[in-house]
Amino acid sequence: MKQRAVVLIACLAILAVSCQAQNQEKVNGSSQNLIFPKGEKITNNNFTGNAWLEQMIAPDSLNPTQVGNVTFEPGARTNWHYHPGGQILLITGGTGYYQEKGSPKKVIRKGDVIKCPPNVPHWHGASIDHELIQIAVTNTQNGATMWLEKVKEEEYKSEIKQDK
Amino acid sequence: MKQRAVVLIACLAILAVSCQAQNQEKVNGSSQNLIFPKGEKITNNNFTGNAWLEQMIAPDSLNPTQVGNVTFEPGARTNWHYHPGGQILLITGGTGYYQEKGSPKKVIRKGDVIKCPPNVPHWHGASIDHELIQIAVTNTQNGATMWLEKVKEEEYKSEIKQDK
Repeated sequence: MKQRAVVLIACLAILAVSCQAQNQEKVNGSSQNLIFPKGEKITNNNFTGNAWLEQMIAPDSLNPTQVGNVTFEPGARTNWHYHPGGQILLITGGTGYYQEKGSPKKVIRKGDVIKCPPNVPHWHGASIDHELIQIAVTNTQNGATMWLEKVKEEEYKSEIKQDK
Repeated sequence: MKQRAVVLIACLAILAVSCQAQNQEKVNGSSQNLIFPKGEKITNNNFTGNAWLEQMIAPDSLNPTQVGNVTFEPGARTNWHYHPGGQILLITGGTGYYQEKGSPKKVIRKGDVIKCPPNVPHWHGASIDHELIQIAVTNTQNGATMWLEKVKEEEYKSEIKQDK
């Protein structure tokens, strides 16, 4: 009877750990974030580090809204840039940073929504140790994104704005 | 020894079922979809059934893009309507229908992206037995959404377009 109890307890422990691991994978892993495709690795010089882009909606003559899904590896970020018509960022996964010129960088997380005003230089990307997934909704009515200089290491690693 | 094997098998079976149920809940339940808030229950007459709206981004004089998160209960749908500047639907959870005037309705699912052309009457909503969660990105440049008549039961339950 004692032996049976030992087997039962061991079996419970093993399965509990296995079940927990499966659930944990769903919370931390990529499976939760794959609502939209990751797309292609970005190869232009407007980013630092590894980032992927899935173009979801192209603008046209009737609707100037452009929608893309961007995934940043830890440490990856855009260059400084601005949008003549403004941009909206919907953060669907991970943790990252957003900074407008002249303001401290702030932390952005899954569930955050950011409105980048037209013509204000800014950058965004993943945090040092987490990926970031965002849907970028760009109003191209007044022209395409204007790309500027790279985000320097000291800018990327600058102090975090705490009121976020 | 036989008894021990029986206990082991019973224990494995119970835990496997319990683990499966936990994972299933994450797939079908609301937990997977809660990237953005569900918002407030819609009380106007532009919808049939229960739907919720979280206004995420209001349009302004600089950027006419409006973003909202809409959750439809099974059977719930918009009235027929059109957008003078067009709309983009990003389906983040569940299963539903989308129909443009003069075309058969089609099934839409998590991961789908739909571009509703300006001034084309259409409706969207949940399927009969699943909820639907969508991010609606509306270009309000040429005016607000124009609401039309309710979607009749025979329209809602009409034949599904199979090429989707």
